[in-house]
Amino acid sequence: MKKLLNDPRDLVRESLEGFALAHADLVRVSTEPGLVVRADAPVPGKVGIVSGGGSGHEPLHIGFVGPGMLDAAVPGAVFTSPTPEPILTADRAVDGGAGVLHIVKNYTGDVLNFELAAELAEDAGIAVRTVVVEDDVAVPQSSFSAGRRGVAGTLLVEKLAGAAAQRGDDLDAVTAVARRAVAGVRTMGVALQAGTTPHSGRPSFDLGEDEIELGVGIHGEPGRRRMPFGRADDLTDLLVDTVLDDLEVVEDDDVLLLVNGLGATPLAELYVVYRRARQRIEERGATVARSLVGEFVTSLDMAGASVTVLRLDAELMDLYDAPVHTAGLRWGA
Amino acid sequence: MKKLLNDPRDLVRESLEGFALAHADLVRVSTEPGLVVRADAPVPGKVGIVSGGGSGHEPLHIGFVGPGMLDAAVPGAVFTSPTPEPILTADRAVDGGAGVLHIVKNYTGDVLNFELAAELAEDAGIAVRTVVVEDDVAVPQSSFSAGRRGVAGTLLVEKLAGAAAQRGDDLDAVTAVARRAVAGVRTMGVALQAGTTPHSGRPSFDLGEDEIELGVGIHGEPGRRRMPFGRADDLTDLLVDTVLDDLEVVEDDDVLLLVNGLGATPLAELYVVYRRARQRIEERGATVARSLVGEFVTSLDMAGASVTVLRLDAELMDLYDAPVHTAGLRWGA
Repeated sequence: MKKLLNDPRDLVRESLEGFALAHADLVRVSTEPGLVVRADAPVPGKVGIVSGGGSGHEPLHIGFVGPGMLDAAVPGAVFTSPTPEPILTADRAVDGGAGVLHIVKNYTGDVLNFELAAELAEDAGIAVRTVVVEDDVAVPQSSFSAGRRGVAGTLLVEKLAGAAAQRGDDLDAVTAVARRAVAGVRTMGVALQAGTTPHSGRPSFDLGEDEIELGVGIHGEPGRRRMPFGRADDLTDLLVDTVLDDLEVVEDDDVLLLVNGLGATPLAELYVVYRRARQRIEERGATVARSLVGEFVTSLDMAGASVTVLRLDAELMDLYDAPVHTAGLRWGA
Repeated sequence: MKKLLNDPRDLVRESLEGFALAHADLVRVSTEPGLVVRADAPVPGKVGIVSGGGSGHEPLHIGFVGPGMLDAAVPGAVFTSPTPEPILTADRAVDGGAGVLHIVKNYTGDVLNFELAAELAEDAGIAVRTVVVEDDVAVPQSSFSAGRRGVAGTLLVEKLAGAAAQRGDDLDAVTAVARRAVAGVRTMGVALQAGTTPHSGRPSFDLGEDEIELGVGIHGEPGRRRMPFGRADDLTDLLVDTVLDDLEVVEDDDVLLLVNGLGATPLAELYVVYRRARQRIEERGATVARSLVGEFVTSLDMAGASVTVLRLDAELMDLYDAPVHTAGLRWGA
C-alpha cells in the first residue's frame, strides 16, 4: 500500500489538523476526538445542524460545515462511528437556543451513537430532532445497517436542511424539510475497484479484471451483485432505472441529478455517466432541473460512481440554490 | 482496464456532451473539435481569456470557464494538444473588441498550436497576447517540453488573469498580471501510481510496490527520480523545499499554498500533505495567506499530489479573492 500518510493511526488527526489550518476562517477544529464546528457557532436563534460518521468519505461531512449547511461535523475513525461524547460536545457548541437537528446516515453504529448523544443533549436542556438518511436502493439491508444504507443523498439532505436553518426556520420546520428530502432521494452506485483501507493496507474487497460490484456501499459492503464490466451507458441505465423506479418518478417531475465519484474516478468519466443518466431521465419525461457532478461522498480511493436523484419542488429548489460557504461546496454571497 | 466509458474514442466527446448538459447556464459547448465557451461570450469591452490543452486533466481547463476566469477552453484528445482551428474559433467567439489572452501550458504541441492560432487571429484583426506557464521545478526540460512543464500553477494564472479581465483591465494590464503570476508560481509533484490511459488500457508507467516517482509530470513523463516510498511528511518536505528554494521565498513573504490531487488521491491525504507543507513554509518565516486543497489539475486516475506555491502581493490577493463562477471553482456573488 502506498498512501500519503505517516502512520495510519495518525491519518484522521493529521488530516483534521491540515483541514483546520486551511479553513481557519470557516471552522474551529478539535482532533481527539475529532470535531469540526462552524467558526461563528452558536448562531443565536438559528437551528443547529449536526452530522458526522466514520472518516474516509471526505469531503462528507467535515467539508460541508459552514454558513448555509452544517454547524458541526463529528468525524470518527476511518469507517467507524464517532462516540456519543463528541456528538454531545457538538450539540452544545452549536445550540443557539433553537435546538439541534441530527442528520445521520443509516448505519447501526451511527444511529446508536447519535441516539445516545441526543438523549444526553435533551437531559442538558437542548432540543434535538433526528433524521436518518437511507437513500441507497441497492440492498434492503446490509452488514452495517438495519434497512437501507445512507450514502450520497446525505449531501443533499444536509444542503437543504442547512438552507432552511439559515433562513430562520424553527426546529420543526427544518426537520420537516430534512424529512421531505430524505423521502424524496434515492441513490445507487457501482464499484470498479475497491478502496484501500489505511489500517489493513489492502483493498476492502477483491474484484476480478472484468468484474464490477453493482450497488456497492461506501464502506466496501457487498452490493446487489457482481457482474461483468460493461459499457458506461449500460451500467448507468441499470443505476438510473433502479433509482427512478424506486422513487416512482413520473412524467413532468422536476429532479436534481447528482453524479458522485467514489474517490478515484476521473471527472471526465463522471460526465460520461451524467450524460447518459440525464438522457435516461428525460426519456421518462422528467426534467433535470438541477445538477451536481463531482466527488462529494467518497469511499477512500474506490473507483466507481453513484447516481442520486432527488425529487424537487419550488421550495426545495430555492433551498438548494441558497448561498453556501463551506470547504467542499461553495456558491453565492 | 475498467473505466466508466463506452468506447475510448468517444470519451472526450461524450464527456463534453455531459458537461454541456450539466452546465448549460454557464457554457456553450461544441464537441468535434472540442470547444467550451462562456455562455455570454463575447463580453463587450472585456479582454477574452482562452486556454486549453490535452484532455485528461479535468477540471482543468473546461471546468474553469465562466465569469471571473476563462472565456473559453479548447480541449484536445487525451494528452494531445488541440489544433489551431478550434483555438481560432475560440478567439473569435470571445473577442469583445479588447483582444484575447492565451494562457498556454509549456508543452511543445500546445505552444506551437496556440502560436499558429494567434497568428491567424491577428490576421483576422484580433489582438492576441500569450503567456506560457512553466511552473514545474522538477526537471529543466522533458520529453514533452522545451524548458519547464506547465502544471497545477496554471489554475492560479487562469484565476488571476481572469479576475483582472473581469474587473476591466485592458489587454496589456491583464497580460502583465498573468506574467506576474507565472513569474511567481512554482510546483512539484509526486506520483504513487500512474494513471491509466483510456486508449492503451495500461498505466502510463510502472512503479514498484514501494516506489514513487518524485517530480512526476501530468502526462506520466518521468520526473526527477524514482525513490522508495516514504512518510508523507518527508515527501512533502522534499516537494516544498524544492519549490521554496526555486521561488526564493524569504521571511515575511505572503504566499498562496495549493495542494493538488492528481486524480485518485483521497482528500484526507491531501490535507495531510497540506498540514506539513504549511508547517514547512511557516518554519521559513513566510505566511500562508491563501489556501486551496483539492483535485484541480489531474492526470487521469494518477495517485499522488503536487504542491504549488504562489508569491502574493495585495493586488494578487484581491484578484484571487474576486468572485468566480465556473463548474470547477465557484465563490462569491
